[in-house]
Amino acid sequence: MTTSATLSTSPATDGAPTIDLGPAVALSCRECGHRVDLGPFYACTECFGPLEVAYQFASSGEELRAAIEAGPDNIWRWAPLLPVPPGIASTPNINPGNTKLIRADNLARELGMKTLWVKDDSGNPTHSFKDRVVAVALAAARELGFSVLACPSTGNLANAVAAAAARAGIRSVVLVPSNLEQQKILTTAAYGGTLVAVDGNYDDINRLAGQIAAEQEDWAFVNVNVRPYYAEGSKTLGYEVAEQLGWRLPKQVVIPIASGAQLVKIDKGFTELVELGLVDASPYKVFGAQATGCSPVAAAFKAGEDVVRPVRPDTIAKSLAIGNPADGPYVLDVVRRTGGAVEDVSDDDVIDAIKLLARTEGIFAETAGGVTVATLRKLLATGALDPDEETVIFNTGDGLKTLDAIASSVGPTATIKPTLAAFEQAGLV
Amino acid sequence: MTTSATLSTSPATDGAPTIDLGPAVALSCRECGHRVDLGPFYACTECFGPLEVAYQFASSGEELRAAIEAGPDNIWRWAPLLPVPPGIASTPNINPGNTKLIRADNLARELGMKTLWVKDDSGNPTHSFKDRVVAVALAAARELGFSVLACPSTGNLANAVAAAAARAGIRSVVLVPSNLEQQKILTTAAYGGTLVAVDGNYDDINRLAGQIAAEQEDWAFVNVNVRPYYAEGSKTLGYEVAEQLGWRLPKQVVIPIASGAQLVKIDKGFTELVELGLVDASPYKVFGAQATGCSPVAAAFKAGEDVVRPVRPDTIAKSLAIGNPADGPYVLDVVRRTGGAVEDVSDDDVIDAIKLLARTEGIFAETAGGVTVATLRKLLATGALDPDEETVIFNTGDGLKTLDAIASSVGPTATIKPTLAAFEQAGLV
Repeated sequence: MTTSATLSTSPATDGAPTIDLGPAVALSCRECGHRVDLGPFYACTECFGPLEVAYQFASSGEELRAAIEAGPDNIWRWAPLLPVPPGIASTPNINPGNTKLIRADNLARELGMKTLWVKDDSGNPTHSFKDRVVAVALAAARELGFSVLACPSTGNLANAVAAAAARAGIRSVVLVPSNLEQQKILTTAAYGGTLVAVDGNYDDINRLAGQIAAEQEDWAFVNVNVRPYYAEGSKTLGYEVAEQLGWRLPKQVVIPIASGAQLVKIDKGFTELVELGLVDASPYKVFGAQATGCSPVAAAFKAGEDVVRPVRPDTIAKSLAIGNPADGPYVLDVVRRTGGAVEDVSDDDVIDAIKLLARTEGIFAETAGGVTVATLRKLLATGALDPDEETVIFNTGDGLKTLDAIASSVGPTATIKPTLAAFEQAGLV
Repeated sequence: MTTSATLSTSPATDGAPTIDLGPAVALSCRECGHRVDLGPFYACTECFGPLEVAYQFASSGEELRAAIEAGPDNIWRWAPLLPVPPGIASTPNINPGNTKLIRADNLARELGMKTLWVKDDSGNPTHSFKDRVVAVALAAARELGFSVLACPSTGNLANAVAAAAARAGIRSVVLVPSNLEQQKILTTAAYGGTLVAVDGNYDDINRLAGQIAAEQEDWAFVNVNVRPYYAEGSKTLGYEVAEQLGWRLPKQVVIPIASGAQLVKIDKGFTELVELGLVDASPYKVFGAQATGCSPVAAAFKAGEDVVRPVRPDTIAKSLAIGNPADGPYVLDVVRRTGGAVEDVSDDDVIDAIKLLARTEGIFAETAGGVTVATLRKLLATGALDPDEETVIFNTGDGLKTLDAIASSVGPTATIKPTLAAFEQAGLV
């Protein structure tokens, strides 16, 4: 709460005009379009629809492109397009973004595809795309006058919040289910914030987070009361892919679906780049990926419905296991508008896909990445995705965090005595 | 074995003049200076001393600097200074390097220092600096005509070799002790190469690796028969720090010691940059960091001796646990020449330091990083390191890979029922 705090003259809740979140000018309801001032709001006062950030961009075209290219080697190069204060790049944060876009020729060959890229967000500081959304949430939260960064989480988000708050020098409060794997508790506890183990499931802690947010007015729950800002962080995945391709859009993208916000925001990023004259308009198809054990959006897509019916998740892809995805209907809009599809894959397919990606490209993805690769394969099989068109898939996390998922399916090729004879007899040469 | 293989016209062992490893022109003995042609050699035929790469650099000064700055965003921007073929950046590899140099103001404040940076190599593709050395070893190995990439390892190196070989489309053979933690076996096995579990300790598998290397003439053991090339990869850590500081050298660096090669090569990198006119000559001090449970170099330094006496390692910092460090004497040379020191720290101090770095900077280091931070603290306490001079410390690996080390010392702040009342009663507000 150093620089930014001095810019906001008043408590968090009054939407004072001194708030400077760069190009962000208001919050606007995604359902009825009603506008409110920037502030810690997430639901429309008119219709209870979700709010999102509305912008007035200061520049476009060549001028904007030059500014971006001269910017820092992280997501803050996109500050002119994000709800963050103009000086954000010089404040202490973990600077995620500009992760590698990897040309996946080996995998393309195995799948019979022409041009395939993997946007590998495991390269972020805590090894998932959550660092992006948390960085934007933190920036907005500080500008809005919050002094604590909080979240309910079962994994990647917990890591990202605890690390970002540590570096920013503010307190974090992370709520996790008390039966979470020891490994995931350790990776968050290491950062030294407040880590609360709650005897309950994710729904329980999510509800508790909402209750605490209502009581503690200087606590920003990244995915609750500052969610509109948080979600915008995922736009940078779309921006980066376009810049890394040489300022153009790919023809097809495959994106994992948890809440669905990431998919929707990548599409929003592409759309903005076209509107701002940074890339030429060209048709692209957006595909969504789910695990069959938590596939409410795929089910709605296949049934031709607009409503997403909640399910009880049962899949190894825990970072995608949101049974009632908030952005589900918007995912359906994007996918149908662009001519894509939503597909789902079994847990066995997920494990096979993790191994396939690691074996062909040396990229070890978490289960969510496995869902995406397996879905790519299935979309090729059904003919929904064209193997001859340039395709980008998104790996949003790191295999080191979901080792349990592959524990029973990989292991040593052989176990031998420590002698050359034993080695040669084992048929390993 | 695609492009590069076609460049070498003959088997691995004849040092044919068609071998093109860029600026590398020969191998030279570090003890007697005897020179041999480039090839898969690592010991001097005259005195059995270790060989290292000798260069003839093609450019220097502004011309070289411009070429580097226009290069790719990974270690291949340094190709003009490495033993790799000129076209290396366009061959399939995992492209490590250009990891973040993080300004650590929070940690500096806690330690009473003025300017402190963390070079964070956990940002590499498999999350340790080993990706650098393996990438250079792979490049040289392919040019020398090898068709298999191999190593003995107990952790980071195994990950790096398996991933790099997968992406390069060549076979990997990794030897590990069969009693290695399941977690470390999984992270290597995921890449699908040949993983051999050996009933023995690291010394046993290291010896076995040497025997296999002697038999299989197209197998490159990265840290055995192509070690001279492999070790050069660590120079890039020094190069990058200098460029990231705006083409200048820091005043003090603290580097962990396993074999000692990394420390020696960072110093070599700095020296080359001065010779090539890329940075101004300015005095710097090199400090070495060891865990007390494996501190043969610190012991020799403190005793004022030139000989490093082997020890039997007993420390949680397993990635530094080399009891007979090959580069130990050269470390002593560098440290004494520059006016630095070698210090060692207890395992308890290592754990405290891991938590300190995570809490202050949001960087979750593996045990080796903990050794470095703890050593920094001790050097400040002894007065060997000046708190007012700009200092860079090297974090060479990721805390996700050594969770066991902190398992008993971090955990939830509190465990509660899922109610607001329980939360408030727990004193967490």
